[in-house]
Amino acid sequence: MINFIGITNYNHLETEISISNINFSNYTWFWVDFNQPTDEEIRHLADTFKFHPLAIEDCIYRLQRPKLDYYDDYTFFVTHLVREEDKEIIKEELNFFVGENFIVTFHHTPSQEVYQVWERVLQKNIEKWDPYYVFYRTLDKIVDNYFPIIYKIEDDLNKIEENIHHKSMNLLLNELFDIRHMLLNLMHTVNPMRDVLYRILNSHRLSKITERREYFSDIYDHLLKLSDAIMSDRELTADIRDSYLSLNSHQTNNVMKVLTIITSIFAPLTFIAGIYGMNFENMPELTWKYGYFLTLGLMGIMGVSMFIWFMRRGWFK
Amino acid sequence: MINFIGITNYNHLETEISISNINFSNYTWFWVDFNQPTDEEIRHLADTFKFHPLAIEDCIYRLQRPKLDYYDDYTFFVTHLVREEDKEIIKEELNFFVGENFIVTFHHTPSQEVYQVWERVLQKNIEKWDPYYVFYRTLDKIVDNYFPIIYKIEDDLNKIEENIHHKSMNLLLNELFDIRHMLLNLMHTVNPMRDVLYRILNSHRLSKITERREYFSDIYDHLLKLSDAIMSDRELTADIRDSYLSLNSHQTNNVMKVLTIITSIFAPLTFIAGIYGMNFENMPELTWKYGYFLTLGLMGIMGVSMFIWFMRRGWFK
Amino acid sequence: MINFIGITNYNHLETEISISNINFSNYTWFWVDFNQPTDEEIRHLADTFKFHPLAIEDCIYRLQRPKLDYYDDYTFFVTHLVREEDKEIIKEELNFFVGENFIVTFHHTPSQEVYQVWERVLQKNIEKWDPYYVFYRTLDKIVDNYFPIIYKIEDDLNKIEENIHHKSMNLLLNELFDIRHMLLNLMHTVNPMRDVLYRILNSHRLSKITERREYFSDIYDHLLKLSDAIMSDRELTADIRDSYLSLNSHQTNNVMKVLTIITSIFAPLTFIAGIYGMNFENMPELTWKYGYFLTLGLMGIMGVSMFIWFMRRGWFK
Amino acid sequence: MINFIGITNYNHLETEISISNINFSNYTWFWVDFNQPTDEEIRHLADTFKFHPLAIEDCIYRLQRPKLDYYDDYTFFVTHLVREEDKEIIKEELNFFVGENFIVTFHHTPSQEVYQVWERVLQKNIEKWDPYYVFYRTLDKIVDNYFPIIYKIEDDLNKIEENIHHKSMNLLLNELFDIRHMLLNLMHTVNPMRDVLYRILNSHRLSKITERREYFSDIYDHLLKLSDAIMSDRELTADIRDSYLSLNSHQTNNVMKVLTIITSIFAPLTFIAGIYGMNFENMPELTWKYGYFLTLGLMGIMGVSMFIWFMRRGWFK
Amino acid sequence: MINFIGITNYNHLETEISISNINFSNYTWFWVDFNQPTDEEIRHLADTFKFHPLAIEDCIYRLQRPKLDYYDDYTFFVTHLVREEDKEIIKEELNFFVGENFIVTFHHTPSQEVYQVWERVLQKNIEKWDPYYVFYRTLDKIVDNYFPIIYKIEDDLNKIEENIHHKSMNLLLNELFDIRHMLLNLMHTVNPMRDVLYRILNSHRLSKITERREYFSDIYDHLLKLSDAIMSDRELTADIRDSYLSLNSHQTNNVMKVLTIITSIFAPLTFIAGIYGMNFENMPELTWKYGYFLTLGLMGIMGVSMFIWFMRRGWFK
Ligand SMILES: [Mg+2]
Ligand SMILES: [Mg+2]
Ligand SMILES: [Mg+2]
Ligand SMILES: [Mg+2]
Ligand SMILES: [Mg+2]
Ligand SMILES: [Mg+2]
Ligand SMILES: [Mg+2]
Ligand SMILES: [Mg+2]
Ligand SMILES: [Mg+2]
Ligand SMILES: [Mg+2]
Ligand SMILES: [Mg+2]
Ligand SMILES: [Mg+2]
Ligand SMILES: [Mg+2]
Ligand SMILES: [Mg+2]
Ligand SMILES: [Mg+2]
Ligand SMILES: [Mg+2]
Ligand SMILES: [Mg+2]
Ligand SMILES: [Mg+2]
Ligand SMILES: [Mg+2]
Ligand SMILES: [Mg+2]
Ligand SMILES: [Mg+2]
Ligand SMILES: [Mg+2]
Ligand SMILES: [Mg+2]
Ligand SMILES: [Mg+2]
Ligand SMILES: [Mg+2]
Ligand SMILES: [Mg+2]
Ligand SMILES: [Mg+2]
Ligand SMILES: [Mg+2]
Ligand SMILES: [Mg+2]
Ligand SMILES: [Mg+2]
Ligand SMILES: [Mg+2]
Repeated sequence: MINFIGITNYNHLETEISISNINFSNYTWFWVDFNQPTDEEIRHLADTFKFHPLAIEDCIYRLQRPKLDYYDDYTFFVTHLVREEDKEIIKEELNFFVGENFIVTFHHTPSQEVYQVWERVLQKNIEKWDPYYVFYRTLDKIVDNYFPIIYKIEDDLNKIEENIHHKSMNLLLNELFDIRHMLLNLMHTVNPMRDVLYRILNSHRLSKITERREYFSDIYDHLLKLSDAIMSDRELTADIRDSYLSLNSHQTNNVMKVLTIITSIFAPLTFIAGIYGMNFENMPELTWKYGYFLTLGLMGIMGVSMFIWFMRRGWFK
Repeated sequence: MINFIGITNYNHLETEISISNINFSNYTWFWVDFNQPTDEEIRHLADTFKFHPLAIEDCIYRLQRPKLDYYDDYTFFVTHLVREEDKEIIKEELNFFVGENFIVTFHHTPSQEVYQVWERVLQKNIEKWDPYYVFYRTLDKIVDNYFPIIYKIEDDLNKIEENIHHKSMNLLLNELFDIRHMLLNLMHTVNPMRDVLYRILNSHRLSKITERREYFSDIYDHLLKLSDAIMSDRELTADIRDSYLSLNSHQTNNVMKVLTIITSIFAPLTFIAGIYGMNFENMPELTWKYGYFLTLGLMGIMGVSMFIWFMRRGWFK
Repeated sequence: MINFIGITNYNHLETEISISNINFSNYTWFWVDFNQPTDEEIRHLADTFKFHPLAIEDCIYRLQRPKLDYYDDYTFFVTHLVREEDKEIIKEELNFFVGENFIVTFHHTPSQEVYQVWERVLQKNIEKWDPYYVFYRTLDKIVDNYFPIIYKIEDDLNKIEENIHHKSMNLLLNELFDIRHMLLNLMHTVNPMRDVLYRILNSHRLSKITERREYFSDIYDHLLKLSDAIMSDRELTADIRDSYLSLNSHQTNNVMKVLTIITSIFAPLTFIAGIYGMNFENMPELTWKYGYFLTLGLMGIMGVSMFIWFMRRGWFK
Repeated sequence: MINFIGITNYNHLETEISISNINFSNYTWFWVDFNQPTDEEIRHLADTFKFHPLAIEDCIYRLQRPKLDYYDDYTFFVTHLVREEDKEIIKEELNFFVGENFIVTFHHTPSQEVYQVWERVLQKNIEKWDPYYVFYRTLDKIVDNYFPIIYKIEDDLNKIEENIHHKSMNLLLNELFDIRHMLLNLMHTVNPMRDVLYRILNSHRLSKITERREYFSDIYDHLLKLSDAIMSDRELTADIRDSYLSLNSHQTNNVMKVLTIITSIFAPLTFIAGIYGMNFENMPELTWKYGYFLTLGLMGIMGVSMFIWFMRRGWFK
Repeated sequence: MINFIGITNYNHLETEISISNINFSNYTWFWVDFNQPTDEEIRHLADTFKFHPLAIEDCIYRLQRPKLDYYDDYTFFVTHLVREEDKEIIKEELNFFVGENFIVTFHHTPSQEVYQVWERVLQKNIEKWDPYYVFYRTLDKIVDNYFPIIYKIEDDLNKIEENIHHKSMNLLLNELFDIRHMLLNLMHTVNPMRDVLYRILNSHRLSKITERREYFSDIYDHLLKLSDAIMSDRELTADIRDSYLSLNSHQTNNVMKVLTIITSIFAPLTFIAGIYGMNFENMPELTWKYGYFLTLGLMGIMGVSMFIWFMRRGWFK
């Protein structure tokens, strides 16, 4: 579907006009949104707007890195819409062609961000809007939508940290692994987005943006914070994992100690019992009156000494 | 609460004037402190001071990254107050709007740092003060308050290092993990603060600060030292943890050796005792006169040979 | 074999001319392809084209790093063709000498990339082509051929991730190791290629390329994406390996617990049975009427208490 | 104690003059050394020399990071004296104020480095000396004294590497940990010292030093080499530790194998002996003539098969 | 020994002249080689050539970092000759003083590299040579001699990788450790050498070299490739080590499972046999006609159930 908003030279807002019939010179500025376009509609990018084939290719093929490309009459931006679904990061591309008096947005899947700004433009006083302000508002919404994902991850991390003794280690390690994967994936959107904003702020070719520097600078702040949080959370997950492993190897050690103490105490005792269970005809001890009680006493002494020896070596700590 | 200090054009210090009634042109410079302001008081930022909506937004929403933003008539600074509570780093934001002849401070929680400087301004000779000097003094106190936290962490690390053999490994590993978490958290305040100071020192737009370069450079020194200490302490915690793990795996090895020696000595002996404990009618050895003593002798020889064999392979080291 | 395409000054396309007999000034531009050249053919690089000995040396000796060298009348490019064979990355070199009105390609093994572009030049309208466009088209194909390798690796990684519980850990760890090796190997082609493209885009000496900046910028995008993917996949393999190891050490712990529980329950019981299996003449308990049943009862109580004790300590979780 | 050397305008060397009575304009240049100064003596920094309060503060408070600060008439340098004591790095601060015609050194503890250069100035031909040459000579001695520490560490590392099989692992791991700690500590002196030298060499404000560039460049070489060595030694310690851990886990594996082989061979044999040790009245095998020998034969075959099976699975390698 | 080659102003090649008697102005250019010089010969550096004391100091003392220092009339280069001996990297220093019309080489040990170029100069047409070409040719040989070492290391790594199942883990881990040590050591020659070449190529003070830029650029390529290979090989060794450790911990796990299965099956069975081996007078089961066979049957059922239970839990995979 292709949607259209145009501000005529007489400052009227026109909409719902078919793109094939538009005389663009009638408008101060206009916004065309390619919302899940068909192959036929996509052809307008080349035929109607004469955009560069490489930019159009970037639109068609999925998941470019976020970037900006300067062309003669417009700048082309690739951005990522991100959401979380079932412990996986899902990314969709949202592309912008931004010129002096037009903005073209392009997306293969419906975009809440575009929809919300579009409704705003239709409702509010139109003199406040222009292509770069539309771009800023949409970009701001895109980046704002990265936060709930990272917040959810940080909540999960807090839960994992607190449940350290109560949940099955298997499950927690799996969760940690999924979180690390999501953070890695998110990092590959946030970092190039941050670099795009940096280039926007320091470009000599985007004078319209430089006029609104503080707005884009605000988005850049958000991306810096996200980038910090991702790095920090990845370090934290590594710390938690190492902490588990330490604990685990400490427990293995303790379990081994119990096993060794039990074995060390009972192996010699059982051996002695085995000796006097032998059926040799000539075993003098068996006929001694107190042979049995002497043997029991010996066993008692051996067991207790063993126990004390292990205690002294600190195996019960 | 909104507090006011103004130096009038006749060099008098005025205070306790309601902000709604002030004619700012009467003052050489003034300081307005928004201390835990109500929503109504916050509105003065926009209505009275005409600050930029994005800077006001940064004030209202909690925990921005430390940063500085240039606006036409003032510079906006975000800084962090940090304290430690129960093995957690607590951060509060303290914001500054600094202009030629005014400084506005803004904080949602009471700030000891602002309070102390405020009292100083009230007491001391006023000609020494101006907005940037107020800013420097407050910033200096903020950064000075980072040190006790890192010193406490380093003391804890020293204790952990020395107690290496005496405390439960479980607890120490937990402490290490908390310390690493605190250091990570602190790093995300100290590093952006350091970058803000770097930008202050190298800015072409802050000529008033360049005049006092050595003062801000002193704060920058502090932040460099803190940043170094944090990195160094994180490395140290990793070293301590690795050291524990090495020790632990070494102990597991030793425990295993004890277990294996005991088992290897007694398993064959107990087996032999078992053989002569069988009840077959036709077992010639049982009737031998010295069968029992030969068997005991054999067992003795086997046990001792095993023991020597393990000793020779170095299992007792 | 040496192949030739020349566009004459009268705009005809000539081909299949022996290189020894060509008068180069008759052509607007030409393309010479050294396809698996013999030593004799290689001599044309020096004798016919007068290329620099060091560039010729780079052609002859195998596997230089990708790079570009400026010479007076031409630029020399070293690039890598990459394919995967049996879990190994195989690299071949493809070299370009690109001048104002000529391009020379050189490769020791057949190159599908060169072949495809060569066929294109022969078929399509020749006015569209020139040496730098030939270079761009071939470079684009080279880089496009890196993607299937990384996609196959990512598919393998997904399979490994999903099969986490079903396949032999031995095999999976081996696969991970091979994948890490391939990624490392790939990285040493992709990163220098990326740097070559960066230098192409920012060079002051390649004005012909600057005219087609967007084309080479598209290839640079691809290389940035590849470089990101390689780093990300290496991190992911490390995460998967750590995840396996954690799981493994967790399982070892569990196995140990089973062993210790079994041993701890049966060692004392077997010892008691051993005691009453001794053949002392004077063992009063043996003659008690309910001695056997008392002993069985005692054993039952001991076994169950042990079991409960381990359960209470959480060893069955 | 405050010491004084002055070269008078008539080229005489004067010394042992109380600082309170000096007319500084009588001297071509002079050197004042604050050697473990009392609080009263420290006041001369402000009263006599009018140094900046922040520089004086840096002198008084202990262990600043090495740095340089430019002031109007002098440059202020913070450097570290380092020595090793009982496996700990001890650092002392040595500060310099260097101006056109004076040098002031300040240190809370006695400095061998200052003492040696001081003696040199007293003995040798004075025309060769000036403030920056004094600074160079002292700095050279400071950095030269870092080498013995790193050499001792490298000797210790070599010993650890060679003793890999002969010493107790516990002790070696402790030594490694101490060495890593010392290297970390040293790094936080050497790296900022290196950065100070870099700034000295590339400063536009230290023309006197630029005249002697090669001398300070020689010190910079030393610091680069030290910095390399520290990084390299830290990597080496990590390698040694990992090597130990690998060895240890390999040994644990071998110990486990011995235990498992012994248990697997004797558990079934002992069980069979147990069966024929039972006292059932009706156990036909017990009455067989060769029952005992058949059982022994069966046990032999079982034991040997077990043994061969383990051997074939490579458990004895 | 000091050797001399001089090209006279009349273009003759003179050699074997004692350095004390030479009138340097007679020569277009000359080459003096200090080959294992005596202390007396070393004095010529200061007395005859008037080289800077710090450069001479660098010659005398062993193993500086590779570097270049500019002096007024010459540039001083420190380079490393490297060879491998018995799994250790041995480094020797080779120093160059290169001026407009002279080159002085200095080395404490014989240098094949210098010898080969020296012979070349004596044999070939002399007009082709000048000091910087001598320098280039020697440097090229030095760097070419780094390759066999890294190739040998890579061959060793390949062998280790392939023998993964056949050799003793102990030995392989030791080899890996030695290789990592050698790579670390090599890195500290190759990286500073690379930086020296980078400075040569980008220097404004070495116009003679800029004329031959492509030659030094060729050496720079080699060093970049070496530097890449070293980093890559270090990563590979870490991967191999981690792979071994994973395998080892996996094997430990398997060994533990065998032990636990054996123990879990036989401990209860042996206990039951022990019960009926007790000598109580009143044990009704002993007198049952099929008591023995019932017990055997029970034991069989218990053993098989245990076995199935472990099989179902996947312990045999
Ligand atoms: Mg797309
Ligand atoms: Mg936002
Ligand atoms: Mg916002
Ligand atoms: Mg998963
Ligand atoms: Mg990914
Ligand atoms: Mg903001
Ligand atoms: Mg705020
Ligand atoms: Mg301070
Ligand atoms: Mg202070
Ligand atoms: Mg915690
Ligand atoms: Mg955090
Ligand atoms: Mg200070
Ligand atoms: Mg580590
Ligand atoms: Mg080649
Ligand atoms: Mg492509
Ligand atoms: Mg393409
Ligand atoms: Mg492989
Ligand atoms: Mg593209
Ligand atoms: Mg690793
Ligand atoms: Mg001090
Ligand atoms: Mg020195
Ligand atoms: Mg020296
Ligand atoms: Mg210690
Ligand atoms: Mg420290
Ligand atoms: Mg030197
Ligand atoms: Mg030397
Ligand atoms: Mg070479
Ligand atoms: Mg060569
Ligand atoms: Mg070794
Ligand atoms: Mg070394
Ligand atoms: Mg080459």
